[in-house]
Amino acid sequence: MAENPVYLDHNATTPVSAGVLSRLSEWAAAWGNPSSIHARSRDPKRVLRETRQVLADFLGCSPLELVFTSGGSESNNTVLKGLWAKLGRERPHIMCSAVEHPSVLRTMQWLGEQGAEVDIIPVSRDGRIDLEFYRAKLGARTLFVSVMAANNETGTLFPVREMAGMAHAKGALFHCDAVQMFGKLPVDLAAWNVDYASFSAHKFYSLKGTGVLYVKRNSPYEPLIHGGGQERHRRGGTENTLGIAALGQVVSEAPAVAAEGSRIAALRDHFEARVLAEIPASSVTAALSPRLPNTSSLVLDGVDGETLLMSLDLQGYAVSTGAACSSGNPEPSPVLLALGLSRQEAQNSLRVSFGRGNDLAQVDAFVEILKFTVQRLRQLQNNTGVRHA
Amino acid sequence: MAENPVYLDHNATTPVSAGVLSRLSEWAAAWGNPSSIHARSRDPKRVLRETRQVLADFLGCSPLELVFTSGGSESNNTVLKGLWAKLGRERPHIMCSAVEHPSVLRTMQWLGEQGAEVDIIPVSRDGRIDLEFYRAKLGARTLFVSVMAANNETGTLFPVREMAGMAHAKGALFHCDAVQMFGKLPVDLAAWNVDYASFSAHKFYSLKGTGVLYVKRNSPYEPLIHGGGQERHRRGGTENTLGIAALGQVVSEAPAVAAEGSRIAALRDHFEARVLAEIPASSVTAALSPRLPNTSSLVLDGVDGETLLMSLDLQGYAVSTGAACSSGNPEPSPVLLALGLSRQEAQNSLRVSFGRGNDLAQVDAFVEILKFTVQRLRQLQNNTGVRHA
Repeated sequence: MAENPVYLDHNATTPVSAGVLSRLSEWAAAWGNPSSIHARSRDPKRVLRETRQVLADFLGCSPLELVFTSGGSESNNTVLKGLWAKLGRERPHIMCSAVEHPSVLRTMQWLGEQGAEVDIIPVSRDGRIDLEFYRAKLGARTLFVSVMAANNETGTLFPVREMAGMAHAKGALFHCDAVQMFGKLPVDLAAWNVDYASFSAHKFYSLKGTGVLYVKRNSPYEPLIHGGGQERHRRGGTENTLGIAALGQVVSEAPAVAAEGSRIAALRDHFEARVLAEIPASSVTAALSPRLPNTSSLVLDGVDGETLLMSLDLQGYAVSTGAACSSGNPEPSPVLLALGLSRQEAQNSLRVSFGRGNDLAQVDAFVEILKFTVQRLRQLQNNTGVRHA
Repeated sequence: MAENPVYLDHNATTPVSAGVLSRLSEWAAAWGNPSSIHARSRDPKRVLRETRQVLADFLGCSPLELVFTSGGSESNNTVLKGLWAKLGRERPHIMCSAVEHPSVLRTMQWLGEQGAEVDIIPVSRDGRIDLEFYRAKLGARTLFVSVMAANNETGTLFPVREMAGMAHAKGALFHCDAVQMFGKLPVDLAAWNVDYASFSAHKFYSLKGTGVLYVKRNSPYEPLIHGGGQERHRRGGTENTLGIAALGQVVSEAPAVAAEGSRIAALRDHFEARVLAEIPASSVTAALSPRLPNTSSLVLDGVDGETLLMSLDLQGYAVSTGAACSSGNPEPSPVLLALGLSRQEAQNSLRVSFGRGNDLAQVDAFVEILKFTVQRLRQLQNNTGVRHA
């Protein structure tokens, strides 16, 4: 197994930036409890204040609208369960898209078991969300809608601003899981006009265990974690100051998001053009939808995605078949099935997600390996097919 | 202000151990997502497996009974809210002690607003929990009881094993917030026979943002954070692998808990003996109760605790007036009020909590500073009193 694989799985997690690695000891040495009164609290208090400001500038909001959490899943659970507990009796209807992350979809399902009326907005194979269904279901009983900014498996972007406006017109609240958008395309929360949005540090070259929740000023809110007065009483628990310092660092040091996005989109487009031209019976899922610049969801007919993944891993390339959080699950990706792919197509899928460390030479080398491996697996499959015939 | 204060506030948080500091970069460089299938997941997967085993040995349980969380507050909220959501309709009565951490007490209050019948078990000034009250209230409608192993402000130990047995005799479940016990006295979950227990890494020389929840095999459970299949479907969200690696390190490298506890108890006892002998009108709250070896909760008549804290801070000693998570709150400690101290006594209180870095010379130097400062503040107070008379 290659000791230093080429990493093409940035939607699962990202390498920790050199800037973060170089300052870990410094931050960990500022180990005081930010809620203390004495001198040991000074450095950690500053970390919280500075990171909150840096993030607010990056996301287009006020520092006071940001709550630090343990990650995207906690942020998502906080909004959905908090709103249900606070206002579910008044407005029992809630909605999300069919391709949300499990931390939204499973939470919606759980709220359904608690009595919520749940509607799931269909998404078509080409990545379009069904706005007619959405418009028809939105009503005076709708408490909130949760739709992601960008899908983790296909990269498809959803019309968050438009959908938030439609929700608000009916008096419903709008939450956006923006975990996959964070750092890949510019985020402007003021322009989106959403009420809540979720972010995660480890998808953006920082540490696991740190997330952010945007709560628009004066929006209804109930903590998921009750406790001390941290985060202005919005999230109990001593703050993960090391993870928060690291998040401030990656946002401060990040290359201009739009320019880096263009660079990566060029890699991705080059990759897809070569795959489609050079690998027979290949296609790109939701290729024509607006997409993240870095994500490519391929269908390679007759090739089992997991077998392909493991073959590529042995040759030094790290990719995935779907969301990392459901890896090892023999079932094909629920997102791809929800888009209308057949089980066979979903099982023949491979996700490639590019990032900061990738360059054209890597992409070209990867295409060659992929071509070779797909060809070999198809041959084996055919031979097996013959033997069993 | 002293640049390197003597730290006497270990119940708020602890310094990060040198062993953790020295390995941060190594762990952060193993940044793969443990749920991935490819080679990048190998190191983080091993971190999870090894830390879980080290912890299980340390706590007296099976590795499969441990769930990694973001901290003690999340662990506490998970048990209380999960049980209520799952079984609250069948058994709507829940109990906790009057001196629980806010992440238990506020959650109980919130569950009360959701319809739970909440009873709060009184604790007397000498630290005894009211077992008669407890016995009288326990019944077939009791879903769960949550009582901490050791109080964060006074250090008082509660009879967890006995109380768990009493709960079980009525078919109720028992949760123990063991955050302050962790690493200060040996924990033996098998002997305690509790159903759930909460722990936090940053109270034991490791990083903020990592906690542990013990869930006895086959106990009822509902995640607080729904999502992917992490932690055997008990806690969604990519694991904080850096924090988990650090926790494994501190547990592996820790001096024998009982011996280190005895060393610290000797410091604490020496400290209290000198204070009581040399500072007039001083007392130790719950001094005769079984206590953590490191904690001293003083009442110094006529001295405002927060003013004293700040004076000591300026002279290079870090202490607290109560729980760090409610610092800056002008109200006196709810824990001390619940014990039956008057508002005046609570306002005249100071918490000193010793730890690994402290030695006898520091303690003696601190007593001198404390004597001097208490005397000065009492003089000022008297002068002010005369001027205003």
